[in-house]
Amino acid sequence: MTAPETVSLAGKLALFSDHWNPRIVGRYNGNEVRLAKLKGEFVWHSHAETDELFLVLKGRLTIEFRDGDRILGPGEFLVVPKGVEHRPVAPEEVELLIMDREGEPNTGTEPVSALTREKLETL
Amino acid sequence: MTAPETVSLAGKLALFSDHWNPRIVGRYNGNEVRLAKLKGEFVWHSHAETDELFLVLKGRLTIEFRDGDRILGPGEFLVVPKGVEHRPVAPEEVELLIMDREGEPNTGTEPVSALTREKLETL
Repeated sequence: MTAPETVSLAGKLALFSDHWNPRIVGRYNGNEVRLAKLKGEFVWHSHAETDELFLVLKGRLTIEFRDGDRILGPGEFLVVPKGVEHRPVAPEEVELLIMDREGEPNTGTEPVSALTREKLETL
Repeated sequence: MTAPETVSLAGKLALFSDHWNPRIVGRYNGNEVRLAKLKGEFVWHSHAETDELFLVLKGRLTIEFRDGDRILGPGEFLVVPKGVEHRPVAPEEVELLIMDREGEPNTGTEPVSALTREKLETL
């Protein structure tokens, strides 16, 4: 067994610039640690079989829920329980860490939209 | 369904000052998001049934493995696979986010040591 790799969030974030296209940077107990850059409005969706963790690293992220909005700044996180509809909105660019179960599309299993990424790149 | 709570890492870290006593600040897919402050040397241990994620928020953390050390600074993380022996060492105070499966003692299931915390406080 080799000692596990140390992962720099800033180092991985420097490797891509496109929005709404999360990269996998780690794996933990059947879940993926992902990094993403967001700008603009996402689609309403939910994840039937997984909670989803959002930890903001840079910028301010609004997550809309059917009964109200949450705004997260750097160093703030939130866990969306499985099945709960939500919509991320980033008026300015946001960098964040996300956790989802392995293989989960970013828009959930439905509806598939133009923003859906079913197979994510591992950095 | 009420929109989930936003959690500030800095706000939660301000609520305690003792070392080697992780607090639970969130729950995700059967795992706990924990915050801890470390200073000094921990004990060699492993977690038979869970991976363990360490994300350093402040300071520099050494994690010793049987075949070498890793040093993590702020914004760096590492996942210790289940069953792999390791020992955290913090020459100066370190603040970090940890993920473990729900209920996992900080020293694993054995050996129990003076540093073992079997029941963690939720903040």
